[in-house]
Amino acid sequence: VSGRSRPCVGVLGGMGPEATVDFFAKLVAATPAARDTDHLRIVIDDDPSVPDRSAGVAGTGPSPGPHLARMARGLVGLGADLLVMPCNGAHAFEAEVRAAVPGVRFLSLIDATVAATRARRPDVRHVGLLGTDATLASGIYHRAFAAAGVRVSTPTGDDQRLVMAAIHAVKGGDRGSTPAQALRDVAIRLAEAGAEAVIAACTEVPLVLHDGDVVLDSGSVDVVSSTDALVARTLDVALGRVPIADG
Amino acid sequence: VSGRSRPCVGVLGGMGPEATVDFFAKLVAATPAARDTDHLRIVIDDDPSVPDRSAGVAGTGPSPGPHLARMARGLVGLGADLLVMPCNGAHAFEAEVRAAVPGVRFLSLIDATVAATRARRPDVRHVGLLGTDATLASGIYHRAFAAAGVRVSTPTGDDQRLVMAAIHAVKGGDRGSTPAQALRDVAIRLAEAGAEAVIAACTEVPLVLHDGDVVLDSGSVDVVSSTDALVARTLDVALGRVPIADG
Repeated sequence: VSGRSRPCVGVLGGMGPEATVDFFAKLVAATPAARDTDHLRIVIDDDPSVPDRSAGVAGTGPSPGPHLARMARGLVGLGADLLVMPCNGAHAFEAEVRAAVPGVRFLSLIDATVAATRARRPDVRHVGLLGTDATLASGIYHRAFAAAGVRVSTPTGDDQRLVMAAIHAVKGGDRGSTPAQALRDVAIRLAEAGAEAVIAACTEVPLVLHDGDVVLDSGSVDVVSSTDALVARTLDVALGRVPIADG
Repeated sequence: VSGRSRPCVGVLGGMGPEATVDFFAKLVAATPAARDTDHLRIVIDDDPSVPDRSAGVAGTGPSPGPHLARMARGLVGLGADLLVMPCNGAHAFEAEVRAAVPGVRFLSLIDATVAATRARRPDVRHVGLLGTDATLASGIYHRAFAAAGVRVSTPTGDDQRLVMAAIHAVKGGDRGSTPAQALRDVAIRLAEAGAEAVIAACTEVPLVLHDGDVVLDSGSVDVVSSTDALVARTLDVALGRVPIADG
């Protein structure tokens, strides 16, 4: 892919802002570049006012769909022709984003994460999810993993409340040991119940939980970062390393 | 300033991408926020194809002015009503950016850095500049500091070549000791020649040179980060902490 024909990456961001920063930083850092002009153009709408995804999925609050659709149209208006959304739960509204910008490529974070998990563990049959209520209730990962014959486990009631509290703490700027330990504890219980890999299925989770952090007596369990998976997928497509399957 | 009336920050970025990431990360981290919705909306055009500022100032290449003007219009079209440009040299073309979006506030990185320097050292009479050829040749800092009665020294021929090489190394992803040491050495020579503070007058410089890094026998010399100055100024204005003097 020559410089001229490289896509302009549009980022539907702000969900939350720290996760958008993390995605942008990793995308720029992972781009092979000796000078400014080797980089991709990236346009970002870091909009923290997108309606809450969990409330939208539960039907207890407004749907974020129309807001996300407006963001997508704005980014495309600015020149974006490859859209990404570094928020797992927002993918419950992916169809509305795609419909808003017909003909524009959209790379699914969910598909990228499932593919990254299978690339790392080709024999994986069972994964555990660390995500928001929106991500769990919408079934987006259940469906995507089921298509690959992989079973998905989610935390039980109290454990899911721990996950949500940890995510909210990270959104509030806490990257300390309290949210990290809570996520690690829940991940260990998912692994003890049979999960062979744990999916950091919320882009706030990789800010405090990393691969190698989840250790059982039987060894460490893979932690698959959805942020890293989307960064890799974005570069693969934008730099023409793979055929474009999405969008 | 209530949530509803807070400005949307538009970032003319990509000069270079790592510096844009650094500005965005610091802006989000410095925003007082307990939840997503406490954050500002920030729209970013991270466009690494802006024509080279040093060649534009020297007249040996196309002016980046028209490109920057288009970026400003695009960001305003997306909703931005407070523009910033985390690139010092691009401020040689600030008038074209302002003229492209009449009535939209633009916060000068140069003015923010001069103000930050004087706030830290109210008695400062002499500063040294670490910046690109564009920033030095355009005289943007010389004029702004002269208005405050402050003398500006710049590196001599060989030293300025060291600064440019270090900045290009950082743009190429090198955050190691080689560019850091070169910038520190030049900063020490500026201080030995009388500079009471050294201005990191290129947004790549703070990626490797930090306050406290420039130490002489007589003590350490302040390193003033233009990135930090613009982050603080943006938040002061966006959160209504200060009256708006710019734009």
